[in-house]
Amino acid sequence: MTDTTEIIVEPGRQDIVVSRVFDASREEVFAALTDPRLVAQWWGAGGPGELEIAEFEARRGGTYRHINRDETGAEYVFSGVFHDVEPPQRVVQTCEFEAMPGHIALESASLEETDSGGTAYMSLSVYPSVEARDAIVAAGMEQGVRAGLQKLAELVES
Amino acid sequence: MTDTTEIIVEPGRQDIVVSRVFDASREEVFAALTDPRLVAQWWGAGGPGELEIAEFEARRGGTYRHINRDETGAEYVFSGVFHDVEPPQRVVQTCEFEAMPGHIALESASLEETDSGGTAYMSLSVYPSVEARDAIVAAGMEQGVRAGLQKLAELVES
Repeated sequence: MTDTTEIIVEPGRQDIVVSRVFDASREEVFAALTDPRLVAQWWGAGGPGELEIAEFEARRGGTYRHINRDETGAEYVFSGVFHDVEPPQRVVQTCEFEAMPGHIALESASLEETDSGGTAYMSLSVYPSVEARDAIVAAGMEQGVRAGLQKLAELVES
Repeated sequence: MTDTTEIIVEPGRQDIVVSRVFDASREEVFAALTDPRLVAQWWGAGGPGELEIAEFEARRGGTYRHINRDETGAEYVFSGVFHDVEPPQRVVQTCEFEAMPGHIALESASLEETDSGGTAYMSLSVYPSVEARDAIVAAGMEQGVRAGLQKLAELVES
């Protein structure tokens, strides 16, 4: 399966735009974003480590906490709260990489139906500063997102 | 009492920075930001209308909803969720003006002690786009913030 994810990191801006079209219905993609049993099958699947979803409640005010452990046992923790969860079209949540406290992003993901019956996923993440955004990119954000969405595609398109 | 609030809206950026020094302790200012009975005494006090705090729970995952009614009965609703609440130094929350759905900001407020025993308040709000930020400014955001922080100063400095 080809990696068709597009990631836009424009110099000098405070945001990152990620998009990909999935050959699956909006309902299927929305479920993969909001059902922790499905999230566990694709999120942060950048390396050979394991993912523990310590918290995950996809509703306004619900929290989530993802603990990634690599093969050395090192932990990479991402956490946040949901601002808005509107089936099957919209998920808005905060995201903090706990190793970089204060670099909190607000991520708005939308799902649109395509003419061919697929689903266009678009996510906009806004950071407190250009420097905070660039630090997350330098920490390997793009590679993690690409690997995760590739897994997500395998999950919903199978 | 002089209005000493500084508001920075730099052209082409996605954020707004608001700062003010209060002649009060961090604990007092923090309480004014997180106790709904105190918030009701200063928030959004830009006009002659009334404020109803329909929801307000200052903890990670807690929600808030402020309904401002002007003298004609028109409602202006602001709502969001708390990402982080760390006494007495930090409050991070989302904020959506419901009349402009999707223009969601992530607002990080910090409180620092000053040498003279006062408290420096600094708030950074990040918007999904420059246009979304400019729309909020055009809707009168600065006037509302100034009036609110002036009321907050009267509350904590009295």
